[in-house]
Amino acid sequence: MTPAAGTAAAGTAAAGTAAAGTATARTATARTAARRAALVGLLVENGLDALLVTDLINVRYLTGFTGSNAALLVAADGEDDGEQNDRSVFCTDGRYEVQSAVELPDLRRRIDRRCDLVLLAEATGRVGFEAGAVSVAQHGRQRAAAAAGAGVELVQTLDLVERLRAVKDAGEIEALRIACAVADQALGDLLESGGIRPGRTEREIGLDLDERMRRLGASDPAFETIVAAGENSAIPHHRPSSRPLARGDLLKLDFGAMVEGYHSDMTRTFVLGPPANWQVEIHALVELAQRVGRTAAVVGATGGEVDSAARDVIIAAGYGPQFAHGLGHGIGLAVHEAPSLAEGAAGIIGADMCVTVEPGVYLPERGGVRIEDSGVVRAASSEPGNVGPGYQTLTLTSRDLLVL
Amino acid sequence: MTPAAGTAAAGTAAAGTAAAGTATARTATARTAARRAALVGLLVENGLDALLVTDLINVRYLTGFTGSNAALLVAADGEDDGEQNDRSVFCTDGRYEVQSAVELPDLRRRIDRRCDLVLLAEATGRVGFEAGAVSVAQHGRQRAAAAAGAGVELVQTLDLVERLRAVKDAGEIEALRIACAVADQALGDLLESGGIRPGRTEREIGLDLDERMRRLGASDPAFETIVAAGENSAIPHHRPSSRPLARGDLLKLDFGAMVEGYHSDMTRTFVLGPPANWQVEIHALVELAQRVGRTAAVVGATGGEVDSAARDVIIAAGYGPQFAHGLGHGIGLAVHEAPSLAEGAAGIIGADMCVTVEPGVYLPERGGVRIEDSGVVRAASSEPGNVGPGYQTLTLTSRDLLVL
Repeated sequence: MTPAAGTAAAGTAAAGTAAAGTATARTATARTAARRAALVGLLVENGLDALLVTDLINVRYLTGFTGSNAALLVAADGEDDGEQNDRSVFCTDGRYEVQSAVELPDLRRRIDRRCDLVLLAEATGRVGFEAGAVSVAQHGRQRAAAAAGAGVELVQTLDLVERLRAVKDAGEIEALRIACAVADQALGDLLESGGIRPGRTEREIGLDLDERMRRLGASDPAFETIVAAGENSAIPHHRPSSRPLARGDLLKLDFGAMVEGYHSDMTRTFVLGPPANWQVEIHALVELAQRVGRTAAVVGATGGEVDSAARDVIIAAGYGPQFAHGLGHGIGLAVHEAPSLAEGAAGIIGADMCVTVEPGVYLPERGGVRIEDSGVVRAASSEPGNVGPGYQTLTLTSRDLLVL
Repeated sequence: MTPAAGTAAAGTAAAGTAAAGTATARTATARTAARRAALVGLLVENGLDALLVTDLINVRYLTGFTGSNAALLVAADGEDDGEQNDRSVFCTDGRYEVQSAVELPDLRRRIDRRCDLVLLAEATGRVGFEAGAVSVAQHGRQRAAAAAGAGVELVQTLDLVERLRAVKDAGEIEALRIACAVADQALGDLLESGGIRPGRTEREIGLDLDERMRRLGASDPAFETIVAAGENSAIPHHRPSSRPLARGDLLKLDFGAMVEGYHSDMTRTFVLGPPANWQVEIHALVELAQRVGRTAAVVGATGGEVDSAARDVIIAAGYGPQFAHGLGHGIGLAVHEAPSLAEGAAGIIGADMCVTVEPGVYLPERGGVRIEDSGVVRAASSEPGNVGPGYQTLTLTSRDLLVL
């Protein structure tokens, strides 16, 4: 894989040199433009003249760019006349000159390796930077560039774009729906093929599942697939090992597909051969807690309230300490993003937020059960013809204790 | 995939609860201990009482830990008595309690979600932090924790651990050798199976290659595999598309395997059917430049000098502007790390540094050629019985223009 050029070969590329001619591309361009317009609203609210976006996921969200080096300067010019987005300037390095022309035909572009510094040189006034994404060392360089420029005041901001990202637009929900369908289908095919059976190792099953997702159109698994058999299922984040599956094992699969950058996330727990009573009991408990959690995930609830609803079921059954992680998290361009469903999380769930609901009970050295769905929280009115408000699961695989 | 707990469930885990009993594990432990001891030397040099390591790759290098949340405090106590490493303290969250006990049986551990803050509370004196890895927002939290503690002065440091990582120990070179062998073997098998042929798409070939690497033992591809056919081969970082291969195409494959966290990186360019003269010419030119680059990669040269040696060959042939990226980069736990082989790079190549050498010539809308090896720079004395000093390639696939 090539490194960027040693010396920064500066240059300017005209916007629109490679017109993306399809309707899909035009829709994508309109969506990213709408997101930048929403961000301008936040900038005005926060008294900022511009935001220097350097978090690559945020750059992708606002522009569609999928490469590994870029920055974006979004200017708030105070006029909401529909033309303001033209004031955004994007920068990437020479490796991505062609790709960026295709991905963001609508934006002014700069081609340079030191993207953030080049964009700061074009900025004026109060310029926000993403304090959660800029390292202390890089901030030092940005300060020097700002001091050398035309009166830029750098201002810390936190999670401005992340706040927008928490609420999904129709295109994002569709991408998540497909990412969930790919995961469902891959698991269904794996089960149907008899791929889960005693003697196969965790690692073999993980590779099998990952390959199926890729063949179904995932660009990659959404994260390192978790395959945890027997006592390993008691480890929340177990990495697939050479342990072969055996009769009597619980088998926990936690996996997802990445489609157009969007991450699905699903967990199912099976049992190999006739289940023991304790396995049936904790599975039923987790299944109940998960259902209660989904029911509680409504517009207006806090993340902490949703977590509590499900957690209380597990606590009441005496397994509180055996559920040592949060109930869920937002999914989207990142596999973990806002909002958080966890103890004490104060953020309020809004319409069209996409979150996982994933309680678990883990009995060390015996086994554990986790059941997780990805879904979207709907307002009553958010999609006419829908079955109603509340949590709509996007992962559709049965949650029953499947005996293999 | 589970989120960490909402509230930080603090706790202390005794070291050595899960003893790693194999000789391999003991060797790994000895290696990470030696790295921490080397780091202590750098701390003393820099007048630091401790270093708070938060870059996860650096934490892995110094401890062997492979999870997604951790920090390490390495204390320089001034005594080089072999016991000082016991003063290092590691922290991860509850999801990794079991895993960390296995991976680093030799270190004191804390279990908490806010690893850096917990470790700062145990520190005193001048404590370095990694300015390239800590965000401005996180630094604010660290400063607050330091102010609340027992007289910690936070000091910016840059690339202390990265400097150590640039020089590979025997275990690292062995891991890279295996990662390179996996890539070689996967490509060889792909060629032998007839997997590269007109009609197959870039994406199909990429998936095929990736699966072969995984089946050969790679935990993953080292990065997103580049398969670029025809005019796409003129794009240095092209992402595999649905474009089918056709006769007359140049086909550029840039890929690698990850083994034990170490990344191999290799590029080969083939041609489908009898090559055109221009294809033969630029391939021969790049092959020559690559050979010159490998020859120049010796202990004592600067990265800039190695880059120039290869670049001058391409410039002399009139293709300077068509080689718009650096010549190479270090490989290891990151796919791009120190040292850099690029125009003006002043860093001096030391013995046992592992770097790529990868010149290319790209003719827009026609096609491009890149040839890349991963290798280790040896001193005359660095390994008795070796064929001699200089650049030893670890990727062994023929560089000839293969006609498919």
